[in-house]
Amino acid sequence: MIAQTPQPPYYAVIFTSIRTEDDHGYSEMAERMVELASQQDGFLGVESARNEIGVTVSYWRDLESIRRWKEHSEHSIARRQGRNEWYQAFKVRIAKVESDYLFERK
Amino acid sequence: MIAQTPQPPYYAVIFTSIRTEDDHGYSEMAERMVELASQQDGFLGVESARNEIGVTVSYWRDLESIRRWKEHSEHSIARRQGRNEWYQAFKVRIAKVESDYLFERK
Repeated sequence: MIAQTPQPPYYAVIFTSIRTEDDHGYSEMAERMVELASQQDGFLGVESARNEIGVTVSYWRDLESIRRWKEHSEHSIARRQGRNEWYQAFKVRIAKVESDYLFERK
Repeated sequence: MIAQTPQPPYYAVIFTSIRTEDDHGYSEMAERMVELASQQDGFLGVESARNEIGVTVSYWRDLESIRRWKEHSEHSIARRQGRNEWYQAFKVRIAKVESDYLFERK
C-alpha cells in the first residue's frame, strides 16, 4: 500500500480535499479513477487516506504524463462532477520528488 | 484543514506509513510532533489522514528548514521510537512544490 516508486526524480500530485455531504456515486468514481489512472503511461503509484480531510498522492514519471492524465476524457468528467457535487474544497500541488527513504521492519 | 501555503516554490515532506498494533503513546506523540513542527522556522503547514495507511504531508520553506526539523532533538527521539515501536513500514519523500491550485465552493 506504500507505493513502490522508482529512484527519484519523479513527480507527485498531492490532492487534499474536503468532501461535501453528497455521497452520490463518489466511492465508485474514486475507485474507478484509481483504476484508470493506474493504466496511464507514466503512472507510478498512488497512496490515499481520508478522515476529516482526504490526502491522496499519486506519483508520475514526468509533467507530461500528469498533463495527459488531467486531460483524459473520463477523468475530466469526474473532475467536473467533483467540483459540482463532491468537494467542498480541494487543493492540488504538483511537486518534484528529489529524494526518498524507505523503512521496513524486519 | 487544507494547509494555507504561500506561492510556490516551497517543499513538501510526504510521509506515508503503516502502523504496528502497538498504540502505546502514539497519539500523544503524533499530536506533540505536529505542535512542535508548527513552531519551527520555515514550517508552512501540515495535512494528514489515516485509514489502512497514513499519509501526512508537511510543507516547508526550504530544504534547510526540513533538515533542521529532522535533527531537532525531541523529534529525533520520536523518530527512533517510531522505528522501534509504532511503524511497520514508512516512506519519506522530499519534494519541491512547483505549482498549486485551490478550489473552494462558493
